[in-house]
Amino acid sequence: MMNNVRVVLVETSHAGNIGAAARAMKTMGLSRLVLVSPRQFPAAEATAMAAGADDLLAGAECVESLGQALAGCSLVVGSSARPRRLRMPVMTPRAMMREVSAQPDSEEIALVFGRERSGLTNDELGFCHLLAEIPADPDYSSLNVASAVQIMTYELRLAAGEDQVRADRVPMAPLATSQEMQHFYTHLEEVLVQTGFLDQGNPRHLMRRLHRLFNRVRPDKNEINILRGILASVQTWRSEVGKGRE
Amino acid sequence: MMNNVRVVLVETSHAGNIGAAARAMKTMGLSRLVLVSPRQFPAAEATAMAAGADDLLAGAECVESLGQALAGCSLVVGSSARPRRLRMPVMTPRAMMREVSAQPDSEEIALVFGRERSGLTNDELGFCHLLAEIPADPDYSSLNVASAVQIMTYELRLAAGEDQVRADRVPMAPLATSQEMQHFYTHLEEVLVQTGFLDQGNPRHLMRRLHRLFNRVRPDKNEINILRGILASVQTWRSEVGKGRE
Repeated sequence: MMNNVRVVLVETSHAGNIGAAARAMKTMGLSRLVLVSPRQFPAAEATAMAAGADDLLAGAECVESLGQALAGCSLVVGSSARPRRLRMPVMTPRAMMREVSAQPDSEEIALVFGRERSGLTNDELGFCHLLAEIPADPDYSSLNVASAVQIMTYELRLAAGEDQVRADRVPMAPLATSQEMQHFYTHLEEVLVQTGFLDQGNPRHLMRRLHRLFNRVRPDKNEINILRGILASVQTWRSEVGKGRE
Repeated sequence: MMNNVRVVLVETSHAGNIGAAARAMKTMGLSRLVLVSPRQFPAAEATAMAAGADDLLAGAECVESLGQALAGCSLVVGSSARPRRLRMPVMTPRAMMREVSAQPDSEEIALVFGRERSGLTNDELGFCHLLAEIPADPDYSSLNVASAVQIMTYELRLAAGEDQVRADRVPMAPLATSQEMQHFYTHLEEVLVQTGFLDQGNPRHLMRRLHRLFNRVRPDKNEINILRGILASVQTWRSEVGKGRE
């Protein structure tokens, strides 16, 4: 089940947590693990904690950035046990996994887990379409990262089982991949710096808001082409004025 | 919450698992831990894995038999990730925790977890009123004991409804009204006709697609102001070129 779902661990400090996360995944039937700049990997402690899930460690991909880890993904789910003051949709793991399991099998999906101490940065959250907040005691929400993987994949397994009879879905155009979204954001930022809308000194804040806005849309490939076309038309329009005046 | 629920770990081999179980409990708001003949306790590894949950370890009771651990309990719940051939009621963790949370507060309840390798003996299962079977891949159901504690206490927290009313949500800005959306679309169409992106003869088809796209976003008032600001910046930029050239 769920061969199109990968688990992404970002800058995990303790190798034991990587092994424990692999074991958690495997108990729930998942197999694809991607590691973004782990402090130490491979590592004996990871293998020890993986118990019989060392095949997942052997097959794990190591990459240098979250962007690389998300190659080909059209749905990126972040998770956190700490309430964060973010203006993005926050769901319970249960509601989230209903959503995830309802995606067509052709969509690549990433479940992203942040660092042990500090979670995901705001820039990393900018890659996420949705954020799952794992219920926890507000006085002690220090959930271990492998425990977070366990809860999320447990809910995914349940949700996938509940949906064994899939209703026929309306065929949609394939969604834009994470990489296509990043190209769009780069193009958008370029145009907004040109028009002077973005302060070149500090474009981050507004760009993050625009990330959140367009991530909510989850545009399909046609739509992202339309948006890119609009940006290109603005740039061409401007340069034509220049020519016309020369 | 749930001061009447204790977690009982039977003959745990690895002290690290005791610490990880304490941490799992505490994240879900439980505090009472009873250990039946742990191989090693207290132990540095338990404290290390407990992170900030060392108060639960300090308060843990060590006893010599499961019978002692269950003193005063009127409901005893066993748990297993491996299907067992038992003549006793087996429930999902979710259904089980609905049952548990429906008990009066005056009832003392125990959640019992067996040894890492061999679980609970048949004699120990004889103490249990109900058995929860945690869903897992039948080909690899080797759930870590602390992970089992995490899933069971997570389901208990949900069933107890601790998180249903969350006061501290980020207040979202009010959504844009239909009229504000129409003004945005009019402005968007104006700019796209100016840049030449829209065929003036037949702008309807593309505009309908853009309607669908931005309606999916359900932008709030701030976001619609940002989008309007972008459109205005494009128009100003163009007119400034004009001026600069004159």
